[in-house]
Amino acid sequence: MKNIAVLGATGSIGTQTMQVIRQQNEEFKLIAVSANTSSHKIIDVIEEFKPLYAVLMNKNAFNEVRRYCSDKKINTEILFGIEGLNTISTLPEVDMVITSVVGMIGLTPTLKAIQAGKDIALANKETLVAAGKLVMSEAKKHKVRILPVDSEHGAIFQCLQGNDKSSVSKILLTASGGPFRGKRKEELLNVTVDNALKHPRWKMGRKISIDSATLMNKGLEVIEAHWLFDVNYDNIQVIVHPESIIHSMVEYVDGSVIAQLANADMKLPIQYALNYPKRQQCVIKKLNFYDLKSLSFEKPDIDTFKPLKLAYEAGSTGGTMSAILNAANEAAVELFLNKKIGFLDIGNILEECMNKFESKENYDLEDILEIDSKVKEYVSSKVY
Amino acid sequence: MKNIAVLGATGSIGTQTMQVIRQQNEEFKLIAVSANTSSHKIIDVIEEFKPLYAVLMNKNAFNEVRRYCSDKKINTEILFGIEGLNTISTLPEVDMVITSVVGMIGLTPTLKAIQAGKDIALANKETLVAAGKLVMSEAKKHKVRILPVDSEHGAIFQCLQGNDKSSVSKILLTASGGPFRGKRKEELLNVTVDNALKHPRWKMGRKISIDSATLMNKGLEVIEAHWLFDVNYDNIQVIVHPESIIHSMVEYVDGSVIAQLANADMKLPIQYALNYPKRQQCVIKKLNFYDLKSLSFEKPDIDTFKPLKLAYEAGSTGGTMSAILNAANEAAVELFLNKKIGFLDIGNILEECMNKFESKENYDLEDILEIDSKVKEYVSSKVY
Repeated sequence: MKNIAVLGATGSIGTQTMQVIRQQNEEFKLIAVSANTSSHKIIDVIEEFKPLYAVLMNKNAFNEVRRYCSDKKINTEILFGIEGLNTISTLPEVDMVITSVVGMIGLTPTLKAIQAGKDIALANKETLVAAGKLVMSEAKKHKVRILPVDSEHGAIFQCLQGNDKSSVSKILLTASGGPFRGKRKEELLNVTVDNALKHPRWKMGRKISIDSATLMNKGLEVIEAHWLFDVNYDNIQVIVHPESIIHSMVEYVDGSVIAQLANADMKLPIQYALNYPKRQQCVIKKLNFYDLKSLSFEKPDIDTFKPLKLAYEAGSTGGTMSAILNAANEAAVELFLNKKIGFLDIGNILEECMNKFESKENYDLEDILEIDSKVKEYVSSKVY
Repeated sequence: MKNIAVLGATGSIGTQTMQVIRQQNEEFKLIAVSANTSSHKIIDVIEEFKPLYAVLMNKNAFNEVRRYCSDKKINTEILFGIEGLNTISTLPEVDMVITSVVGMIGLTPTLKAIQAGKDIALANKETLVAAGKLVMSEAKKHKVRILPVDSEHGAIFQCLQGNDKSSVSKILLTASGGPFRGKRKEELLNVTVDNALKHPRWKMGRKISIDSATLMNKGLEVIEAHWLFDVNYDNIQVIVHPESIIHSMVEYVDGSVIAQLANADMKLPIQYALNYPKRQQCVIKKLNFYDLKSLSFEKPDIDTFKPLKLAYEAGSTGGTMSAILNAANEAAVELFLNKKIGFLDIGNILEECMNKFESKENYDLEDILEIDSKVKEYVSSKVY
């Protein structure tokens, strides 16, 4: 029995994590959960799984859930905010923390979980993007596993099994290309939020859907891959693969490429991370190659989708530069979702912030949180 | 330093094995080689690598090479025939035997090498097809590794690394489809030997080229995969993949598929088998996914390409039935190459032999050699 805490239990990844845990209720026990504002969804989770703790990030939602549990005499302890997240990340009875919250909010509780010796199933991209060096060195120090919970890094992780790290020559990160693949800049000038939210292959949250449309999502994944697998940026290649069947690949020194393929379904990488190194019975629709017809590959258009190019630059610069990029992106995406800026402005804002803010080479958690606030403030203030 | 004997050093696989050994002359020492009739080629090998032994299967070639070495005062000892093959397979100084001879002639020396505790790099298909049960049980008994030297089984072997055997659900064996992919039976009635020898992807010997054209080659590989990886025939699926980039795949119980990809070049599986579990620097042209454009998949047409269907049947029947199939095929292909029968007759002869000869469930080496001769005699006598 593995005891689990899920940070972000009501989002897209969180909900699918609940499905995996439900399927394997003999193997996993849900000890603690968190949600942002979704009080109704978290109440459903509480009633089904009876966790010891639930955290709400929103005060109204917190009050509502606490009242509900008290009225219904439910024993789950309801906690509030970042303090609550930090508490459930470090509970002595928890073996593994799944961090599927979106944004920088995931960083501190993930670090605390690592320092408390918990294995991490990491779905929060910002943790490694903003503070990869810090997070990986803490993970090494506390001997905890960082298991990627997303289709690409999960795929790479699988492709690395049984091979010596020194024989890896390249990470080949596949990308669906998003809803605007093949479009030129002029065609993206008047993109609406609704256009950008329509991803061709994956149903995801709003932030990550926009990141997919700008290819920033792939940029964040490049930086993540660098930290997770200790590979130079020159040796991480993005390949647009619109069918999203090959979820990424590893090229070895002998010219052999190992790939992981599956129907696009987040339940697979979630299940793999939770059960690693074991594989469990299938919860997804299996591939049928006779129906598949064909798989195709393209070079990404990094002039049109500038955020991908900027991510390589920020990653290669190192220090706090990718935290700057990430903060600028979080703020810019929010502005776009609120219809304050156009689609192409996102990339321009990232570029501006990377020029404006200086990277600090050696950093600690405080530095990251500080630069994050600064950049976000700057981006927001520019518009209002 | 690994000491190596190569049975069949002048054929397609043998020649490429020499290239790999040449590239890694610090790691490998060629102790012994064999050839069928190619005296000039084997003299080149002898002069370059100075092996202790060389075997010729043809009496004239043997005399010629022996005379040459004696005249030139070359110290290599020249041996003759199957006795010679058995000698070099069991030399105390040899660590690994590469069996790249074509046909049933490979079986006895491979078995002797296994019994002498040598690791086997196996390129000879007939060894496992004719006597898989015997060969694998001897390998287990003598604790030797059987490392596949062909692109498909080499790929599967790579895709299995780091995974638990119990989590394998299916072997997905890819096939180029050969030179007649997509053709209907009527179109194959008048196929010439030259047509059949023109393989779209691989340059190979004559026997294997014909086997590729009939899909018998894939049938033999299905039976090999059954023995090498201990997977039921129901769980071995052939997928036609004309681009020959994915060299085979493994499907796991969780729905994940792991694939191995590379440009079609036998030097890669040879190098992998010789160096396993290490990977060496690339000797092949690396894949470029931006140039690759697309990969496609089809169901094989087992009505037109009957040998593939028959191989599944023979394999499932077990006992000596796949030895019967293999013998019938060796004889039938020879008849076709000598223009005595038509292309589609090959499949018909296989079917006839499978009906005519009875499978013996428990067999030893003698049984296999006996049924092999009987079937070959029968097929040859039918025509002359």
